[in-house]
Amino acid sequence: MTIKRRQFLAGAATAGLAASASTFPKPAIAQSRVEWRMVTTWPKNFPGQGTGAERFAKTVTEATEGRLVIKVYAAGEIVPAFESIDAVIRGAADLMHATPYYWPNKSKALNFYSSVPFGMTTPELDAWMNHLGGQELWDEIYDQFGLKAFHAGSTGVQMGGWFNKEITSVDSVKGMKMRIPGIGGEALAKLGMTIINLPAGEIFAALQSGAIDATEWVGPYNDLALGFYKVAKYYYWPGMHEPGTQIEVTVDKKKFTALPKDVQRIFEACCRNENNLLTSEFNARNGAALETLIRQHNVQLKRFPNDFLQAYGNAAGEVIQEMRDSGDPLTKKVVESFLKARRDLMNWARIADQGFMNARLLDIKFPT
Amino acid sequence: MTIKRRQFLAGAATAGLAASASTFPKPAIAQSRVEWRMVTTWPKNFPGQGTGAERFAKTVTEATEGRLVIKVYAAGEIVPAFESIDAVIRGAADLMHATPYYWPNKSKALNFYSSVPFGMTTPELDAWMNHLGGQELWDEIYDQFGLKAFHAGSTGVQMGGWFNKEITSVDSVKGMKMRIPGIGGEALAKLGMTIINLPAGEIFAALQSGAIDATEWVGPYNDLALGFYKVAKYYYWPGMHEPGTQIEVTVDKKKFTALPKDVQRIFEACCRNENNLLTSEFNARNGAALETLIRQHNVQLKRFPNDFLQAYGNAAGEVIQEMRDSGDPLTKKVVESFLKARRDLMNWARIADQGFMNARLLDIKFPT
Repeated sequence: MTIKRRQFLAGAATAGLAASASTFPKPAIAQSRVEWRMVTTWPKNFPGQGTGAERFAKTVTEATEGRLVIKVYAAGEIVPAFESIDAVIRGAADLMHATPYYWPNKSKALNFYSSVPFGMTTPELDAWMNHLGGQELWDEIYDQFGLKAFHAGSTGVQMGGWFNKEITSVDSVKGMKMRIPGIGGEALAKLGMTIINLPAGEIFAALQSGAIDATEWVGPYNDLALGFYKVAKYYYWPGMHEPGTQIEVTVDKKKFTALPKDVQRIFEACCRNENNLLTSEFNARNGAALETLIRQHNVQLKRFPNDFLQAYGNAAGEVIQEMRDSGDPLTKKVVESFLKARRDLMNWARIADQGFMNARLLDIKFPT
Repeated sequence: MTIKRRQFLAGAATAGLAASASTFPKPAIAQSRVEWRMVTTWPKNFPGQGTGAERFAKTVTEATEGRLVIKVYAAGEIVPAFESIDAVIRGAADLMHATPYYWPNKSKALNFYSSVPFGMTTPELDAWMNHLGGQELWDEIYDQFGLKAFHAGSTGVQMGGWFNKEITSVDSVKGMKMRIPGIGGEALAKLGMTIINLPAGEIFAALQSGAIDATEWVGPYNDLALGFYKVAKYYYWPGMHEPGTQIEVTVDKKKFTALPKDVQRIFEACCRNENNLLTSEFNARNGAALETLIRQHNVQLKRFPNDFLQAYGNAAGEVIQEMRDSGDPLTKKVVESFLKARRDLMNWARIADQGFMNARLLDIKFPT
């Protein structure tokens, strides 16, 4: 029906006609509207993820002129953070704003749609998602649960984490108890650490009480807001465990495909719109937040030693190989598609982004 | 009126209601539609820029259900490439798909909205645009010409260019005639090169005839399509002159602000949607295209020597300082806003993207 209407209208087109608000064709005054409940895994208005969820909801509402209204619920308002996916599956919510590696009990391959250690940067992951088969395989995974997902932002390369003890070699981490989800955590377990996962709202207390010795969360912009500098001394880089962790907007698939085609298109465009806004927000705010942490809160910035990084990389490689060999054909497909994209994109990055950034640091007189 | 309607509808909202195509509120069957003519500075369906322009137009048409139809014209179909901006200003077209440094006669500050040598990567530029004042200053520049612009894609870090003579030191480039637009060209002129600008469609013939000795265009994906490997031997990296050149979608401002608010929102979201799709397309395709150039076409990949890179960086710094001191207050504001963002984002990149990418190349056993 939509196509026929367009064909009909094409005959009446007036090329180059300037629109004015009064003459421009408008959507009908809606007789009713649809309101969707979006659960999130973040505290209310948490800077970055929480405010990004609100901005996304507002943009969809405005772009559909209220035909689709999205109402945002913080972690715990409808369900606890880590029950979000089941809330969408059973219909207690219509969609969620979260990150895929929070659902290892659904599929371990979901790790690749958040971020995996020593994997890909955000622009690289975008290339895999949009053009090298990543999205199609994600669709296959979530199809099993009646879900349809979109990326809607990335934290960018994270910080390695907050530690109360200095890391001088790979042996330093043995016996430490750390909060870190995903494959990064599994790899660190191979190096002798004890690993747990906790949502944002529960980390500070665990670190303060000594229930954990270390945590990673995201980066300076987020971590400053959570106040970790009050209970941990050393802030380590680089964040090899998560070189660009993606936010997902994941919808009940039946509800999504029931939307009119134009609203589906608007929804998808609003996800990529928010992807650009949120990813760039982390980039824009991290530098200043890091300055504040160092200058005002006396945080000690430290780089992980190379022997730790190498052992960590080897352990991450083992975990990924184990996933590939786990016997699940879909996980194997995801791992191999990801690894192929990573190899090709790394080769290009060496010549391009990395080549540029390294040469930018040559001894050059540049105005500031 | 829109706000009142929303408030009214808010009272009738049904939380959690599942939409179906038959019950979902729809835009009115349009009595008329608006068709916009979009000129571009690219050959018809040129892979990347040209196909991106078509994809953008299609997405806007679908997301507005044909209320706004954008028709794409290749370079030369309505006006030659470099007359696109004047075509929009005088109304021969409604909008253009181009890149801002093609219009130095309008404002030299526009260079900062394409890419400047030794400047910022695409994610860094996005941070400046969205969150550190870049877009607002761009709006000030284009306001003078009755235009409103959005970014809608980036080439990513480019290649340094195609040369017929080897560059062994900064002295090698003296007397060479090169096609390169923007500040990169001005900086190379300071090193003794003769600089011209040509649109995509005219470069091959100039290189073949010997009218120019060297050219930069974009990167492997684009350059393979233009066949430069047939008439030049050496392919140099890194592309310091353009570390992420932005595509602009620039509209007659009166026509844009006359659009209903929801269509404005859709249009803006579609620009960022295309930004993500096109930027990631270059990233996805460049690696494979570079392989083809090297293996099938015997192109010799070479890195610029450091003494050339340093002299080039110093010259670029001088050009930027001259722009800052040129006496135009708006250009000064743009230069200083850009330089401040660059400084802060470079500090963060060292810890984050660059720190990650360099550590990723340590000696690590990782599955492939």
